[in-house]
Amino acid sequence: MMAYWFESPGEQDDIVISSRVRLARNFDTLYFPSMMDRSGALEIMRTVRGVLEQAGEAYTVLSIDGLSDADRLELVEQHLISPALMKQADGAVLISADKRISIMLNEEDHIRIQCILAGLRLKEAESSVMEVEKHLQKGIAFAFDEKLGYLTSCPTNVGTGMRASVMLHLPALTATGYITGLLKTVGEYGLTVRGLYGEGSHAVAHIYQLSNQVTLGLSESEITDKILSSARQIIGDEREARRLYMASDGRVELEDKLMRSYGVAANARRLTAGEFMSLLSDIKLALSLGLIDGLGHVTLHRLLIEAQPASLRKRAGRDLTLYERDVLRADVVRGALRH
Amino acid sequence: MMAYWFESPGEQDDIVISSRVRLARNFDTLYFPSMMDRSGALEIMRTVRGVLEQAGEAYTVLSIDGLSDADRLELVEQHLISPALMKQADGAVLISADKRISIMLNEEDHIRIQCILAGLRLKEAESSVMEVEKHLQKGIAFAFDEKLGYLTSCPTNVGTGMRASVMLHLPALTATGYITGLLKTVGEYGLTVRGLYGEGSHAVAHIYQLSNQVTLGLSESEITDKILSSARQIIGDEREARRLYMASDGRVELEDKLMRSYGVAANARRLTAGEFMSLLSDIKLALSLGLIDGLGHVTLHRLLIEAQPASLRKRAGRDLTLYERDVLRADVVRGALRH
Repeated sequence: MMAYWFESPGEQDDIVISSRVRLARNFDTLYFPSMMDRSGALEIMRTVRGVLEQAGEAYTVLSIDGLSDADRLELVEQHLISPALMKQADGAVLISADKRISIMLNEEDHIRIQCILAGLRLKEAESSVMEVEKHLQKGIAFAFDEKLGYLTSCPTNVGTGMRASVMLHLPALTATGYITGLLKTVGEYGLTVRGLYGEGSHAVAHIYQLSNQVTLGLSESEITDKILSSARQIIGDEREARRLYMASDGRVELEDKLMRSYGVAANARRLTAGEFMSLLSDIKLALSLGLIDGLGHVTLHRLLIEAQPASLRKRAGRDLTLYERDVLRADVVRGALRH
Repeated sequence: MMAYWFESPGEQDDIVISSRVRLARNFDTLYFPSMMDRSGALEIMRTVRGVLEQAGEAYTVLSIDGLSDADRLELVEQHLISPALMKQADGAVLISADKRISIMLNEEDHIRIQCILAGLRLKEAESSVMEVEKHLQKGIAFAFDEKLGYLTSCPTNVGTGMRASVMLHLPALTATGYITGLLKTVGEYGLTVRGLYGEGSHAVAHIYQLSNQVTLGLSESEITDKILSSARQIIGDEREARRLYMASDGRVELEDKLMRSYGVAANARRLTAGEFMSLLSDIKLALSLGLIDGLGHVTLHRLLIEAQPASLRKRAGRDLTLYERDVLRADVVRGALRH
């Protein structure tokens, strides 16, 4: 078994949790999903599987209606499928053997190819999805307009059909209030900042997703270049804000707060989802500041996934009450942090 | 160097922190301290030292006016002298080589012999002070009345002149509210319950001192028997209250609270005296309930002394601001708990 993205280390993973690229494509010969009937959906599944098999690529195929609610939610928690796909009875996801690639079928678009990697590896994610697209192009004619580029259900995806994002942990920029200005500034560059689970989701644990707002008028590599350059600027700002804080009179106060959070997380017998996320942010910052030995960022990123409801349900092998879930979450967190 | 009482384990020290016996005696030939001049005080010091030397007993002699405020306060924190002795310019204390016995001179009475031991060892403490008294009797005529017994400055000490106490950690009886009734009940048996630093002091960290109120009409061994029997009853009640709590639905809640306290204490960078005492109580209970491995009650009892202001000042080797003291307290606690 290959490791999931959250089980691997990555460049600058003290601040960058993951890099993700997603490419939307549609069949030229079929209605877009909102207008399509079941036979169209099945044709898409058949065709995509066939083309990938011919290309010699090994994928696990999971159809949404064959999955329990908990299994679907677990895939969302792992960032392998979108919340929207969960609700598509005709939806399916193909997951590559190395677990880097997930191909969602019959979501908002016929095909959405996604690559997610730990740390700051946007270029690698980009080339991975482009390679999959090349395979698919051999057997599928994509909806394409000479002037507009690739056509998609939602106009915001027209053009390259590409959405690229990096997930950043920015506690110092949040504490200084700098983040508010940042959210405005990136908009001027055609970028946007969202919470952990995409559009409309709130930033918890000081984790933000930086992604492109525009898919039109830029090449794929120009999009990732832009995000990378902006991300590097933000990462530099976050490091500087941390440095200033640690050089200030507030240092002991900060260390005290962060390490208390670590102590609570490593010993609590009950943790709500909300408290866990807040503690995780403190622990990640404490680790980045060198306050904790013998712990890796990978452990924290695993927890970020494994302490979520569906992952906990899977671990328990049965439905859990809220209370039981909080107890199991505390067990999982304690087990991971104790060393 | 022999160990202080708080550096040694003792019987039932999961609940009983220490056992202490104090014997008040006065010279027959001298005014009581409140009426006595400096020459009388010096005669007492000379005589007591001389008698002990003749008996071949090795004591360290510390005169109060030769000690800094911090050194005096440290002796109070270690329960080797009373707060009252600190203020006596003519006061002195003799501490035995094994640190079990401290003899206060020119406090409220001419002589107060004290033995303090870890755990439930009241009989051992009693025989230790009685042995010292026997040595002293060889060279000193004590103020004694055939009908009343030994005479003391304060009428409440007349008779045996003996005050015996055990220091008990009673979190479960406090939580259940049972302690309120207990405080009344023991009064009917001529016993009294006080806080950590004696008369008038408040019970912090759920630590209570059980001692005799009456010194008249009972023999020395009857006094310690009474306290021991009452202590054993209370210890049994505390154990039962703990057992019931751990068998109840509140178990996870309790473990969660206690272990969070442990986590905070083992990781915080600043601890006020008040927060420390509250955390210590939780940690001691957690340890007693088997929730923490590799930690001993002796470590907690040491902390109970070493995290006090004067002990911290001595460790630092200089006066500390409140802020610095809280930081050093956290360092000391963290160092002791991390294992």
